Amino acid sequence: MTITITAIARSPDRGEGLARDMPVRWALEEAGLPYAVRLVPFAAMKQPAHLALNPFGQIPTYEEGNVALFESGAIVLHIAQRHGGLLPDDMAARARAITWMFAALTTVEPPIFDLDMLGHTDGDRPWYRDRLAILQDRVRNRLGVLTQRLGVSDWLEGDFNAGDLMMVAALRRLKGSGIEDEFPVLAAYVARGEARPAFVRAFEAQRAAFIASNGANAPL
Amino acid sequence: MTITITAIARSPDRGEGLARDMPVRWALEEAGLPYAVRLVPFAAMKQPAHLALNPFGQIPTYEEGNVALFESGAIVLHIAQRHGGLLPDDMAARARAITWMFAALTTVEPPIFDLDMLGHTDGDRPWYRDRLAILQDRVRNRLGVLTQRLGVSDWLEGDFNAGDLMMVAALRRLKGSGIEDEFPVLAAYVARGEARPAFVRAFEAQRAAFIASNGANAPL
Repeated sequence: MTITITAIARSPDRGEGLARDMPVRWALEEAGLPYAVRLVPFAAMKQPAHLALNPFGQIPTYEEGNVALFESGAIVLHIAQRHGGLLPDDMAARARAITWMFAALTTVEPPIFDLDMLGHTDGDRPWYRDRLAILQDRVRNRLGVLTQRLGVSDWLEGDFNAGDLMMVAALRRLKGSGIEDEFPVLAAYVARGEARPAFVRAFEAQRAAFIASNGANAPL
Repeated sequence: MTITITAIARSPDRGEGLARDMPVRWALEEAGLPYAVRLVPFAAMKQPAHLALNPFGQIPTYEEGNVALFESGAIVLHIAQRHGGLLPDDMAARARAITWMFAALTTVEPPIFDLDMLGHTDGDRPWYRDRLAILQDRVRNRLGVLTQRLGVSDWLEGDFNAGDLMMVAALRRLKGSGIEDEFPVLAAYVARGEARPAFVRAFEAQRAAFIASNGANAPL
């Protein structure tokens, strides 16, 4: 059964792998599953064909036979629960790995996402500097907890699992914020994730898609 | 095996069931599972005993034998995957229900949460009114999509499932925003959720815990 996901044709991250197809591609590569990608132009994301797959008009979506999903977290979990390599077999350990997936998406990423967006959405507003300081402190709070939790371990719970995958994907959004340098334990954690062969394959694939959509001379 | 969850002793919602133990209580009631609650005083949430259960110092947590979880979404999913009443048996339908759980937590709730918090965090800031308008529009955008998606259906995907549970829990946070009156389809959806016997039992239990912590004359 062919797996088809969607990604945005000209990702605003310019091929840096920050769009939400990246964790799905990474999970598919960790599980060793082939997949097809349908690139959706920005203007088509709010059109009926795409809204039928995701009513909120976002990427990624996932189609495989009669399975049609959206939400990157739900898709990664679906892959992880049905294939090897992303979740431990032991029930208690498996539930903890899934806990970290939710922690990445609902506790760690939201302030990072808000900080990342602030320049785009509020860069010219009079409150920009004040809001920046507030959001930076919120992010530092989460990163401090994560640093302590990780300690000298390579991954959050023993071996690499889908919780680490989602957490590394969330932390990668810190790049360019200046804050990542304050947390070397987390920078090393992200680097370990990025060094995984499955990550590298996923990253190169989304980068190639960006170049194909934007011409070979598109600056990256 | 006894299930023990944590909740906050004097919830700032004053027993309105907006704290994150509420969806977990509701899921346990839908599944027909008995559970114990350990109330954590606010000051104890950042102390070692609670941080050992949730390093971010939040409630709820979930303990059952050697299973120790945090994150309300992960806990509700754990309950739903191991007991009846919260997820369909069919694999494709089950994955879609889980998709809606993630949509509730990562796409619908964040702007509602930000709007709900704005008065507390930014009420006295010069940018309050401008930010209020921006956040209200973000919320309206999500609620418009949900209204269209729900249409004349009672629930998001056929029968009630864990996706509806998380979505109703997210939408309940709109109360008092004034916005909920603009979306009667969603107000009726929330009312359907709140009318479920399992919701009523969960709501009364958390309300009783609030009264017990704050004295019988505590205003609700």
